[in-house]
Amino acid sequence: MITEKIDKKNQMSFDFDGNSETQTAVEEPEEIVKADKKTARSNTNKTRVKTAAAATAESMAAKQRDISVSEFFAKNRHLLGFDNSRKALLTAVKEAVDNSLDACEEAHILPDVTVTIKQISEKKFTLIVRDNGPGIVDKQIPNIFAKLLYGSKFHSLKMSRGQQGIGISAAGMYGLLTTGEPVQIISRTDKRKKASHYHVQIDTSKNKPLVVLDEACDFELPTGTQVTITIEGKYQKGKQSVDDYIAQTAMANPHTTIIYNAPDGETHKYQRQIKKMPFIPVEIKPHPYGVELGLLYKMAGESNAKRLSAFLHQDFSRVSSRLAGEICKKAKLSANSRPVSLTIKEAELLHTAINETRIMAPPVNCIGPIGENELEQGMKRTVDAEFYAACTRRPTVYRGNPFLIEAAIAYGFKSEQDNGNDGSAKLTAGDPDKQPQMELKRFANRVPLLYQQGACAIYKANVETNWRNYGLSQSKGGLPMGSVILLVHIASVWVPFTSESKEAIAHYPEIIREIKLAIQECGRKLGMYLRRQRRIRQEMVKRGYIETYLPYIGEALQEILLLKDEQVKTVVSRLKDVLEKTRQI
Amino acid sequence: MITEKIDKKNQMSFDFDGNSETQTAVEEPEEIVKADKKTARSNTNKTRVKTAAAATAESMAAKQRDISVSEFFAKNRHLLGFDNSRKALLTAVKEAVDNSLDACEEAHILPDVTVTIKQISEKKFTLIVRDNGPGIVDKQIPNIFAKLLYGSKFHSLKMSRGQQGIGISAAGMYGLLTTGEPVQIISRTDKRKKASHYHVQIDTSKNKPLVVLDEACDFELPTGTQVTITIEGKYQKGKQSVDDYIAQTAMANPHTTIIYNAPDGETHKYQRQIKKMPFIPVEIKPHPYGVELGLLYKMAGESNAKRLSAFLHQDFSRVSSRLAGEICKKAKLSANSRPVSLTIKEAELLHTAINETRIMAPPVNCIGPIGENELEQGMKRTVDAEFYAACTRRPTVYRGNPFLIEAAIAYGFKSEQDNGNDGSAKLTAGDPDKQPQMELKRFANRVPLLYQQGACAIYKANVETNWRNYGLSQSKGGLPMGSVILLVHIASVWVPFTSESKEAIAHYPEIIREIKLAIQECGRKLGMYLRRQRRIRQEMVKRGYIETYLPYIGEALQEILLLKDEQVKTVVSRLKDVLEKTRQI
Repeated sequence: MITEKIDKKNQMSFDFDGNSETQTAVEEPEEIVKADKKTARSNTNKTRVKTAAAATAESMAAKQRDISVSEFFAKNRHLLGFDNSRKALLTAVKEAVDNSLDACEEAHILPDVTVTIKQISEKKFTLIVRDNGPGIVDKQIPNIFAKLLYGSKFHSLKMSRGQQGIGISAAGMYGLLTTGEPVQIISRTDKRKKASHYHVQIDTSKNKPLVVLDEACDFELPTGTQVTITIEGKYQKGKQSVDDYIAQTAMANPHTTIIYNAPDGETHKYQRQIKKMPFIPVEIKPHPYGVELGLLYKMAGESNAKRLSAFLHQDFSRVSSRLAGEICKKAKLSANSRPVSLTIKEAELLHTAINETRIMAPPVNCIGPIGENELEQGMKRTVDAEFYAACTRRPTVYRGNPFLIEAAIAYGFKSEQDNGNDGSAKLTAGDPDKQPQMELKRFANRVPLLYQQGACAIYKANVETNWRNYGLSQSKGGLPMGSVILLVHIASVWVPFTSESKEAIAHYPEIIREIKLAIQECGRKLGMYLRRQRRIRQEMVKRGYIETYLPYIGEALQEILLLKDEQVKTVVSRLKDVLEKTRQI
Repeated sequence: MITEKIDKKNQMSFDFDGNSETQTAVEEPEEIVKADKKTARSNTNKTRVKTAAAATAESMAAKQRDISVSEFFAKNRHLLGFDNSRKALLTAVKEAVDNSLDACEEAHILPDVTVTIKQISEKKFTLIVRDNGPGIVDKQIPNIFAKLLYGSKFHSLKMSRGQQGIGISAAGMYGLLTTGEPVQIISRTDKRKKASHYHVQIDTSKNKPLVVLDEACDFELPTGTQVTITIEGKYQKGKQSVDDYIAQTAMANPHTTIIYNAPDGETHKYQRQIKKMPFIPVEIKPHPYGVELGLLYKMAGESNAKRLSAFLHQDFSRVSSRLAGEICKKAKLSANSRPVSLTIKEAELLHTAINETRIMAPPVNCIGPIGENELEQGMKRTVDAEFYAACTRRPTVYRGNPFLIEAAIAYGFKSEQDNGNDGSAKLTAGDPDKQPQMELKRFANRVPLLYQQGACAIYKANVETNWRNYGLSQSKGGLPMGSVILLVHIASVWVPFTSESKEAIAHYPEIIREIKLAIQECGRKLGMYLRRQRRIRQEMVKRGYIETYLPYIGEALQEILLLKDEQVKTVVSRLKDVLEKTRQI
């Protein structure tokens, strides 16, 4: 039945642009059918023959082969954030800027970054990102810019923007794929030397760099790097635009000067607001709680330590010599046995012992928050609201990796139409369409996340938070309504993203729990504010009643009790006092 | 400011389990602080020293190195669907079953698959998947099961479940990481020979297989493969469970017998319902419209063709010799020039010419739908509803890859509490909380997608469809409400997933558009049904009025016109006929 249907369809040509809304299979005129058959004969016939023969284990084996990681990502380039031209431009800018900021901070240099985008033709853009970082040594340049899975950050546990050794090479690969142009790099590591100028491109079948040009050149900065990538892109302002990304980056990185020359000729300058380096992250060793059996076994096999207890002490964080001895004892293994000769059964005993031992949480100096104050200031710079609150949680751990969550909230924009709305459930539930949805701003290690909101742990934690408790209306499984901006920042030595394009945080339960707690903290503060606002309003209304009706009560009392005018005045005034005192604003 | 805060925090120990709800930083008692300092001294001091020294280009270069693809995925294992124990069990089953079904179909064998899950300890499960496929030749077994990015499907454009050469090796790697156990494979390719028995494990630092055991053994089937993986997992019934996955797989693959021995001792048997092979997909060449400049340039450089026109004709689908000549002419390039010597400038001319030439859409015999009838049958098997509809769209193309979309809808479950509700916007808008949300069932190449619904193009297309037009209530940006199940299937030679775990479809505009059209088609059918139902009900109500009030009208007429009883009866009866005729049911 199915096969019949297909064969019939196969006889027909079909609208390539797919605009046809016809649902039923209409037979095409005979002539077109013929043309179709004729043009496609060679291909179709070949494939037909293939179909007829069933595959065998041998024929299948003949086709099996290695897949280069570059081929893989070239085909799956949406995994890296290159789904469409607009997003491609943003992703390329993002990867270059992330690298620049990381390099500067690692060298303790306050970052000055210049981003220039030039439109070459309708769909072709050239993107130039220059930083005042330490520069890159010559022999590393080709690998860094034209080899996927190459870098310094993957093997270390340290808070940084880049982590995978994919991003900038992927942007270069996308440029090569869409425009054929190589990546151009100018880098200077020493003010006493000239800069190096490279043109490199990736060989996707081998995942290796190909150097097209290599010469010395001048560079206006004493040290620094400039990367130029030409790609097929699309420039469009608004949400999820390059402009949006740069603005949000400036917001979360007040120690950075960013000059952005947009393709439309405008220049946006974000001046440095804090003149000292922010928190400088340090590298840590893995925490024993986050290490699985298999990994523990592997680490033991590769350890330089001569004794089991030394292995535990040296290769993990928070394991003192005393604690290492205690773990060995609990596992009934000799502290003097050699780690390399550990069997899988012994590793299992060790693993169980580790998880039964109380070990201090990993050191928290490896991750740095933006800070409650700074977050509130950042919000105030961006939006003029009635109410602000922020919360920085203490660091905790998922899979042995320290992380911390921060949240900030801004409520009641002055510019919105529903200005003055107190956001109470009663008032807003009536016409939910008039209320805007909450705006969610997500950051990971100070990098704004603009795409895949729905897939993000931050989104999940937010929609699972009952905002009605805090005075906002919210439909089930949705974002709350109201003129509210919620900012959430995750800082970690290893941020678990849902894809290589680093757009959304994976749903680790520990992370979701912490995000919820941070959101709840902001929510409680907002709720208090909103309840107070509502009480004030209700009180105002009641006070109005008192003022309206008291004179009549006075008159009535005068008649009943035969009071003098003076007495009436006193009674009314005292009644008013008493009535108002029974309510507190 | 930030640094100060951190340093302070660093002096404190903190709840490892993170249960603390305290938001303000409370100083811990002096004793604990001391203990903390002492235990962590060695680590912390080391890292402190590191921080003090700023990195230079040289020190950074020293740390840069290759990252093996296995290391990458071991660290980012949530990308492969191993976020947590429950999902890990599901993903492992899914990868093994997908491989089994693909192998059987490729060899034109009706699949018999047995899935057995045994619980070894609280968190440890052994999973055994056996198929009657063609088996795997000895020398390929280690690579297929213990090397990432190795397979036969990546380099071909063909509709199949697996495509990346990652899945089953990743499941094995996760098993190794969490339990230390190797993957066990028994495979037999010839009934005259014994089967091969292998134990293999992946060396993650090199992404290479390590063979632990290799011997001959008996196997109860003439040909076939059995894979055994022991992993840390969690078995829990309900949505997104292994049970759910197996049931949905059976639904979309009626030509398959699946026997599932669940860990709780229950056996679920899904008998084959169609005794012939479904559509057998063929492999196609890339379509010229989907090839970007860089790829075109690369393909030309690697082509075996001697002439440019032959390259276009041989290496692409739907390019006849005549059309190849036309393209060369349009690009002002000689049809006889050698493809390998094409320059990037010439490639650009060729690329432009291709996109200005009308080329027939790719052959559609490479993808097979489940079929409208089969989809409706499948829905009927799963749910007892009032109304069903299905729609199979004609194939179209994204980035040169043919794909097609199918949708099916079931409305009004008999078992739901809001039985009899006609789903009209008026009736349901009143109490949206009482209505359930639409259930969305997503399939890609007949594989059910259970996770990351929010990130999926199918979800996006669905929430962007205005279901109010079709008589369902729907809040902005949400799923419609009502006892409705919507099934959407995408079949393609290359399904673009948002991550390697293949859980959601990427947001390609062409795909979203087609999904919307398929959904709209089902929606229109549902809308017609619902409007008809509503008319019937309204008519019933009106008929009730007529029957109630006609006798009184009769009496009134009798008085006014002085009619006899007989005449009244006739008038009333005729009035009734006339009134009813003016409305149509």
